[in-house]
Amino acid sequence: MPDSDSPDEETGFFFHHVAIIGIGLIGSSVALALRVNGFEGPISIADRNGEALREATELGLGTSYHTSAAKAVSGADMVFLCVPVGAMGATARAIAPALSKTAIVTDTGSVKGSVARAVSAAIPDKSRFVPGHPIAGSEQSGPRAGWATLFRHRWCILTPTEHTDPAATDVVAAMWRAMGANVEIMDIEHHDLVLSITSHLPHLIAYNIVRTAYDMETVTEQDVIKFSAGGFRDFTRIAASDPTMWRDVFLNNKTAVIETLGRFMEDLAMLQRAIRWGDGEQLFDTFQRTRNIRLSIIEAGQETAAPDFGRPRF
Amino acid sequence: MPDSDSPDEETGFFFHHVAIIGIGLIGSSVALALRVNGFEGPISIADRNGEALREATELGLGTSYHTSAAKAVSGADMVFLCVPVGAMGATARAIAPALSKTAIVTDTGSVKGSVARAVSAAIPDKSRFVPGHPIAGSEQSGPRAGWATLFRHRWCILTPTEHTDPAATDVVAAMWRAMGANVEIMDIEHHDLVLSITSHLPHLIAYNIVRTAYDMETVTEQDVIKFSAGGFRDFTRIAASDPTMWRDVFLNNKTAVIETLGRFMEDLAMLQRAIRWGDGEQLFDTFQRTRNIRLSIIEAGQETAAPDFGRPRF
Ligand SMILES: NC(=O)c1ccc[n+]([C@@H]2O[C@H](COP(=O)([O-])OP(=O)(O)OC[C@H]3O[C@@H](n4cnc5c(N)ncnc54)[C@H](OP(=O)(O)O)[C@@H]3O)[C@@H](O)[C@H]2O)c1
Ligand SMILES: NC(=O)c1ccc[n+]([C@@H]2O[C@H](COP(=O)([O-])OP(=O)(O)OC[C@H]3O[C@@H](n4cnc5c(N)ncnc54)[C@H](OP(=O)(O)O)[C@@H]3O)[C@@H](O)[C@H]2O)c1
Repeated sequence: MPDSDSPDEETGFFFHHVAIIGIGLIGSSVALALRVNGFEGPISIADRNGEALREATELGLGTSYHTSAAKAVSGADMVFLCVPVGAMGATARAIAPALSKTAIVTDTGSVKGSVARAVSAAIPDKSRFVPGHPIAGSEQSGPRAGWATLFRHRWCILTPTEHTDPAATDVVAAMWRAMGANVEIMDIEHHDLVLSITSHLPHLIAYNIVRTAYDMETVTEQDVIKFSAGGFRDFTRIAASDPTMWRDVFLNNKTAVIETLGRFMEDLAMLQRAIRWGDGEQLFDTFQRTRNIRLSIIEAGQETAAPDFGRPRF
Repeated sequence: MPDSDSPDEETGFFFHHVAIIGIGLIGSSVALALRVNGFEGPISIADRNGEALREATELGLGTSYHTSAAKAVSGADMVFLCVPVGAMGATARAIAPALSKTAIVTDTGSVKGSVARAVSAAIPDKSRFVPGHPIAGSEQSGPRAGWATLFRHRWCILTPTEHTDPAATDVVAAMWRAMGANVEIMDIEHHDLVLSITSHLPHLIAYNIVRTAYDMETVTEQDVIKFSAGGFRDFTRIAASDPTMWRDVFLNNKTAVIETLGRFMEDLAMLQRAIRWGDGEQLFDTFQRTRNIRLSIIEAGQETAAPDFGRPRF
């Protein structure tokens, strides 16, 4: 049988038994995406949250369910860590003794530097660890939030460490492509910097503006809710994201976030000054520059041009 | 014929001839909404932009088209000012000599204090001026961007001045209700403060983060575009809004925007400090508080709960 006829070649899944640790939005989407795209082997699922595990069982996301992460990885040759960034190290230490020698370990954490260090230090063979981050998600969490096509036409960034075996990276890359994603290989540091501006800072700012609105003594919550269609509601979606996940992101990407945030605050101070002094030209020039980037995002298939994000028109 | 059988009572349009000055996104949506909801009288349209006027003609938005605003208002008993906030005063001065004695003048400007002062000072009878602001729109501009149901299930705020005749306010309120909007009567000052947090600050921040991203030397525009699905793209929509409109908003709502922006920056500095010192508890508590407000916005019908804003799932 020629190689190209083997099931692996057909599906892009060069492994036989998957373990998913942490069955939230991302873990459940991975489980669904594997199945929908032709992975037929066992999927062992672990979560410390009993309710999440029960929901995953009801949804039939896997073939076995465990409160012990170590039990879930036993026999698996592809292990997915889908817990919050701050729990990656402890999770890796918990599974380390039970990992099979051939298992590849990968993760989906939104920060890569701290996760790469913590997981590499914990597992027996760091050449088998391929850090990863799918740039797709939503503000929902838990196993019911996942969907099979979450990763389609989205980017998944892999950030192999200096120890990672390139063959392991290839297997993980093929898997993400099989789930419909585009794969980008990137330096860990560059990942953490790029994501600090395209993801972490937007979340911080969204959380912050909702808080600022809450705390205005002379503007009621009712005012904010009723008149949110003026722009505010666009920020509330990402400010509804999981607090644990995002606390961990900021604690673990401190350097890049503080650098990016510093630049943002400087730029904002300049706009503040332009408003105070009535410098319409500077305001206009700043606002003028930003339109094209949206068009490019739409062209790149990372956004829809539907008016109002396809919100229902009554 | 009893009153309730008169066309006015049926439709909610207690006037016979409308003039719309400025046929952009909002002006064209007003024209379409009037027609769709049963207004059958003439609609005179004026714009200084010949291309916009030509498009409006092609789209059949009105019954007559004018480059002179004064010509458009002649004979009209309902006059809509839909130009940028900074052009309201000059537009009011231009139409003043041609306004009929019974005409009600209203506007759609995003700031109310400066517009109320400028328009009241310009027109012959300030008791006939009803300042208004529909809380609905998009980042598009021009006559092709409008749609007939833009205002449905959205709030329209009216901010009568001390001189406004309550009967004129009633006519304008009935008209907005007839176009599907909910009407709220509010103090001018309160409007400008509420909107500074629910609309003006979100736009300023969105423009600013896109600019900050552009200016990072070590992050390419391609990086930003490719990985925008992590949160950034949600900000680019409103950062694609019309630069003239928004320059005028900030120049004309200086006091409220600077107050709100000051609070936002203080709050952000606190989060920055929490990140720097690794204060996970403070981050978590802040992120925890903001979820409910989104649910309330969805319940209030000002947003959809569709995952990912109903962006297409491939
Ligand atoms: N959401 C996104 O948009 C997104 C996008 C890309 C990447 N990511 C990354 O993907 C990972 C998972 O995110 P998610 O959105 O799927 O989160 P989620 O929906 O909140 O699910 C996380 C799951 O992991 C469980 N968990 C937490 N700590 C654990 C531990 N020590 N051992 C075992 N299970 C544990 C949680 O249980 P509890 O409920 O008990 O905490 C929960 O069931 C995170 O690292 C995140 O940064 C998220
Ligand atoms: N867009 C929104 O989301 C939104 C929502 C609520 C309220 N508003 C308010 O509604 C008003 C109109 O906004 P819009 O979004 O419809 O703007 P738009 O699409 O940019 O249209 C404005 C139109 O007015 C014209 N204009 C500008 N100055 C003029 C003048 N001095 N005389 C006559 N015409 C003039 C413009 O022509 P040029 O192209 O030559 O400038 C353009 O055709 C603004 O006051 C805005 O604050 C907007």
